[in-house]
Amino acid sequence: MELKIRVILPTVVDVFVEEAIQEFKHYVSDAVEVQVRNLDYGPASVEGEYDEALCVPNLLEKAIEGEKEGCDGIISLCFGDPGVKPAREVVNIPVVGAGEASMLYASLLARSFSVVTVLPNVVPMIENISKKLGLHSKLASVRYVNIPVLELVDKKKMEDSLFEEMVRAIQEDKAHALVLGCTGMMGVATTLHEKLKDHGYDVPVIDPSFASAKMLESLIAMNVKQSRLTYMPPTQKLYK
Amino acid sequence: MELKIRVILPTVVDVFVEEAIQEFKHYVSDAVEVQVRNLDYGPASVEGEYDEALCVPNLLEKAIEGEKEGCDGIISLCFGDPGVKPAREVVNIPVVGAGEASMLYASLLARSFSVVTVLPNVVPMIENISKKLGLHSKLASVRYVNIPVLELVDKKKMEDSLFEEMVRAIQEDKAHALVLGCTGMMGVATTLHEKLKDHGYDVPVIDPSFASAKMLESLIAMNVKQSRLTYMPPTQKLYK
Amino acid sequence: MELKIRVILPTVVDVFVEEAIQEFKHYVSDAVEVQVRNLDYGPASVEGEYDEALCVPNLLEKAIEGEKEGCDGIISLCFGDPGVKPAREVVNIPVVGAGEASMLYASLLARSFSVVTVLPNVVPMIENISKKLGLHSKLASVRYVNIPVLELVDKKKMEDSLFEEMVRAIQEDKAHALVLGCTGMMGVATTLHEKLKDHGYDVPVIDPSFASAKMLESLIAMNVKQSRLTYMPPTQKLYK
Amino acid sequence: MELKIRVILPTVVDVFVEEAIQEFKHYVSDAVEVQVRNLDYGPASVEGEYDEALCVPNLLEKAIEGEKEGCDGIISLCFGDPGVKPAREVVNIPVVGAGEASMLYASLLARSFSVVTVLPNVVPMIENISKKLGLHSKLASVRYVNIPVLELVDKKKMEDSLFEEMVRAIQEDKAHALVLGCTGMMGVATTLHEKLKDHGYDVPVIDPSFASAKMLESLIAMNVKQSRLTYMPPTQKLYK
Amino acid sequence: MELKIRVILPTVVDVFVEEAIQEFKHYVSDAVEVQVRNLDYGPASVEGEYDEALCVPNLLEKAIEGEKEGCDGIISLCFGDPGVKPAREVVNIPVVGAGEASMLYASLLARSFSVVTVLPNVVPMIENISKKLGLHSKLASVRYVNIPVLELVDKKKMEDSLFEEMVRAIQEDKAHALVLGCTGMMGVATTLHEKLKDHGYDVPVIDPSFASAKMLESLIAMNVKQSRLTYMPPTQKLYK
Amino acid sequence: MELKIRVILPTVVDVFVEEAIQEFKHYVSDAVEVQVRNLDYGPASVEGEYDEALCVPNLLEKAIEGEKEGCDGIISLCFGDPGVKPAREVVNIPVVGAGEASMLYASLLARSFSVVTVLPNVVPMIENISKKLGLHSKLASVRYVNIPVLELVDKKKMEDSLFEEMVRAIQEDKAHALVLGCTGMMGVATTLHEKLKDHGYDVPVIDPSFASAKMLESLIAMNVKQSRLTYMPPTQKLYK
Repeated sequence: MELKIRVILPTVVDVFVEEAIQEFKHYVSDAVEVQVRNLDYGPASVEGEYDEALCVPNLLEKAIEGEKEGCDGIISLCFGDPGVKPAREVVNIPVVGAGEASMLYASLLARSFSVVTVLPNVVPMIENISKKLGLHSKLASVRYVNIPVLELVDKKKMEDSLFEEMVRAIQEDKAHALVLGCTGMMGVATTLHEKLKDHGYDVPVIDPSFASAKMLESLIAMNVKQSRLTYMPPTQKLYK
Repeated sequence: MELKIRVILPTVVDVFVEEAIQEFKHYVSDAVEVQVRNLDYGPASVEGEYDEALCVPNLLEKAIEGEKEGCDGIISLCFGDPGVKPAREVVNIPVVGAGEASMLYASLLARSFSVVTVLPNVVPMIENISKKLGLHSKLASVRYVNIPVLELVDKKKMEDSLFEEMVRAIQEDKAHALVLGCTGMMGVATTLHEKLKDHGYDVPVIDPSFASAKMLESLIAMNVKQSRLTYMPPTQKLYK
Repeated sequence: MELKIRVILPTVVDVFVEEAIQEFKHYVSDAVEVQVRNLDYGPASVEGEYDEALCVPNLLEKAIEGEKEGCDGIISLCFGDPGVKPAREVVNIPVVGAGEASMLYASLLARSFSVVTVLPNVVPMIENISKKLGLHSKLASVRYVNIPVLELVDKKKMEDSLFEEMVRAIQEDKAHALVLGCTGMMGVATTLHEKLKDHGYDVPVIDPSFASAKMLESLIAMNVKQSRLTYMPPTQKLYK
Repeated sequence: MELKIRVILPTVVDVFVEEAIQEFKHYVSDAVEVQVRNLDYGPASVEGEYDEALCVPNLLEKAIEGEKEGCDGIISLCFGDPGVKPAREVVNIPVVGAGEASMLYASLLARSFSVVTVLPNVVPMIENISKKLGLHSKLASVRYVNIPVLELVDKKKMEDSLFEEMVRAIQEDKAHALVLGCTGMMGVATTLHEKLKDHGYDVPVIDPSFASAKMLESLIAMNVKQSRLTYMPPTQKLYK
Repeated sequence: MELKIRVILPTVVDVFVEEAIQEFKHYVSDAVEVQVRNLDYGPASVEGEYDEALCVPNLLEKAIEGEKEGCDGIISLCFGDPGVKPAREVVNIPVVGAGEASMLYASLLARSFSVVTVLPNVVPMIENISKKLGLHSKLASVRYVNIPVLELVDKKKMEDSLFEEMVRAIQEDKAHALVLGCTGMMGVATTLHEKLKDHGYDVPVIDPSFASAKMLESLIAMNVKQSRLTYMPPTQKLYK
Repeated sequence: MELKIRVILPTVVDVFVEEAIQEFKHYVSDAVEVQVRNLDYGPASVEGEYDEALCVPNLLEKAIEGEKEGCDGIISLCFGDPGVKPAREVVNIPVVGAGEASMLYASLLARSFSVVTVLPNVVPMIENISKKLGLHSKLASVRYVNIPVLELVDKKKMEDSLFEEMVRAIQEDKAHALVLGCTGMMGVATTLHEKLKDHGYDVPVIDPSFASAKMLESLIAMNVKQSRLTYMPPTQKLYK
């Protein structure tokens, strides 16, 4: 193994850990070791600003620990990109969030894209990611299937609901590409792309976990990381 | 006393507490009781994304506690507005951040405004507030005096540095109004306004603490609070 | 009485004068004296660019007179903010328009807001206010009830029509806050908020008259007024 | 003569009337009769929001009168476009302002343009025109020569000052085209273009009077006028 | 004849040549000679990025040839403005595209406009024109009638389909002006305007061919052409 | 070899071909075969809109040929992204341009970025890429070293000039990341990053060739390509 990346699932439950391990093996090349970590303390899922605020402290510890243990890059595996900006300040390796990575790939492939996420609670958060990233004008809409993160394990139900909202995004919001708006929506992008294609819409469907993996691998390969003018290390001070 | 507002200083040191108590008495009308609280755990000051991430959990507890104790509104007394969005999800009283409040007043008074803050570390964070708030096109620049928050107690040095950067903001960045970019910069707005006026620039200088107080009072008077479509209460889940 | 503010109703009819006097008493603190003035010459109501152009000359005279008589601030009580910018050039006290004030408060409270106004004639004018103010990206839509200003005295009809358009703004335009788009829509904000809440939409409803009062009070308290770099006094010249 | 257009100089002094008559003869084709009218009441020049507010009522009367007397189109001959929007509501012939017309031509010819105007007082007004017109992203800067309108009769001084600011606009603000920001700056565009070209900058210089004439002629030729969905006729009401 | 302009139809078929000759005679004043040229090699119609890429080389030759033969200006007669930017680099006379010209006139006349074009293939191209021109915020929508360019000869069918989409643009997309999005849609603007007016929508309908003619005539009259800072002549090099 | 990508150098000279072959070997993983092709006809370099127009027809032939020969993706190796959009219409494999790819990576890593390119001629073209891509608000500036493409072989001179402009971009334009604005600037990104870091600016420097390679590899891995709603296949027609 030549490279090591750490994927942090910002939740105290481990329901997606095993699946993430399996999926990421297919995302990265053989030369990359993937470590998946979930949280010791924090929320059971991230479905709003409050949950996000509570998952970040431990996520940052896991990121710092990852760098100490020789990781070459960090992924915050949640579409809301929790902890990505603060982590960039405290580690010297690239940090990638699933939301930003997905939006960047979608922007390349189409005139506009829609995100289909879990709950209405996170819609303004996702819009804010696009505003901070500078890509808001490409975002046709953020739609949701109204299924809590922890119920996404019912793949059939998730897939059907996602398909329905994706068709609406194309027809009503003029989306030309689609982004799965939750990293818990693993393993359905290809099927959804095929199904949309069968219905006459040959549009890319971005899997945010996959996108974060390829984005991080690319940055490591190019030997670039976050700008130290945007993400300065914290000044010396007391933390209690 | 008819109304009660809670001001949360998101830092474990209490260096600004007494001053905040004194200043806020002048900001609000006699009918308002002001409670100032600092943190039990978190950073000694907020000078970047990392510090902000660490100050939010306890700030949220203080906000929830404030509501339980009958407060009519909450102020997050830091220009980066830490915890404002998550707090809006978990309490049913208006929550105001000093950064957003200041930018809104400045937008009314002039074609453009500049923020003068403490350190380069927080510049992108302040820009992001303006992007999420929708006021980025009014923001002429974010400048900094390069003085850490905890050294702002040297009022003379702070004032001189602020004046210098404010003149540059007017001359080089075409700012028509000025915003003090740290709530630690208390008690200098009036003097700076006078000094700028003496130099031919009769422009408003917004004190972020004062702005947050008047904004919160206004919202309470109008009996409005954050929209529940933007800030939904957290879904039921396990927090560890 | 410590403070004195002048509210100018930019119309030659006095149908809203008495109501404005009563309402403003509740808007401001006891220490504020409110003077309400309507016009000696101009239009009977302001429902377009032409009406606005004709109401401004006398409004400016009333503003100048107000300052001479010791007022501490001026309100242009019309959602189109007639005369606000020229008045800022000719008086040395803060001048606030109901449109700008409302939009700023709405921006703080929600990811997006819609304005519901009287007639289609004023829709582009309201959009232009948001563009000049820098808040256009927060404006979900401008809707109208198709009732002329002078027929707003039928409160029941107005309220029902407003409710209908507000629900549409939420459902179709994704508005997360609502702004009453005419200062003639007095005394209905609270009822509409309650009604929307009963229907599952707990969103703020901004009353523009109330908003203008609190905005002006806040500016006077902070001792700030319009920037003299944006609003320069008129150069010496002949006026005929 | 086949066509008749009315040019309204929104000022009570007639210092530019004769020159306007002479210049417009060269702007339009032989088949067009040009009427130049100045105001009976209003300001001596338009150098701010206040002046603009005072010039509009009589300008509107002259526009309405022009239509009654058979004119095919109206020009508001001032860079601030006073009265253009209200006039569009009350006449059924196209109304063109010098500011909007100039900015549209400049947008076609270059990646960005700067306006060089008379006084700092009008800078925010000109920026607001570009925002309402939708062309703000093309506006590199608004500069001024600091000469009041009525002193523009000293052509040599005006030309030298304009040249200086134009070079700065190109070098410092990255302007690729230039717009004369006052209709009193007649007869200098060609000379300035030549002089800039001699200095290595072959960039278009737009004369706002000329631009308004060609824009109006084009609209009349195409038989189009302002949209009645944007500019609705005033509703019936009392005007006092 | 005093002036000579060259209209280049970027297609190898000559189906629209005769009609263009007839129409342009009405667009320009008597003093202007109009040359219409179609291509020797390239596509039969321009209905996408690929077609546009293939029509440009010969279009550029025809433009250069036009200048050599004494033309005073060039029109690229296709709504996608093929070759306009490269032509501006290689000739010293103004070059106008039908798309840009139409959008500029529409922007003056209304708060927003929609383009109705032929096929979905060209929608993103038209949106990109508005983005490069700086007018994207005025573009309400791009709609299409789903008729290939070469079938536009069936005027009745085209007119009916255009009317239907125009009504939708007004009702659903809030368009206040309309632009025909293909230069093959000649001779229908007036009829469509009348028909819309009869249905209560008195909105301008811009004919792109007519718009390009008036825009070019205006530029020639004002003696301005493309900025040499935006459109620099090609550097010396080998072309094979 | 499992994958095959085709890199098209859109120029008739082969001066960069050998270097491109060597460099791309390091960019992609061992499982990828890289084919580098330059043009049979077209310009010797691409330094403006005219050159770009002339290089596209043969580039498209090379792209179509590449797909027929089993390539999995296409790179247009020029910062202006010539032919990228038309190629996306005519092939069913992902097509990546060096400009778009670089800007997307830079956007992730910093609050803002500057491009440093060869000549002033291409500055507006690069700005237009950012506008079409939706990332214009992240683009701090486009600077140039004033060295024609074919003289970039003098690596020392190029590197020194690039360093100088990069420092200016950071200091004057507030760039927080840097992008090499010409694919002829190969093999200098790492050195420039080190040099900037030594001068106190630890900012990422993006090599556009490397960026295009990683972007294409990522898309192929994720099994996504351009949206068929944005890039429709050309309609059937005659090409001569």
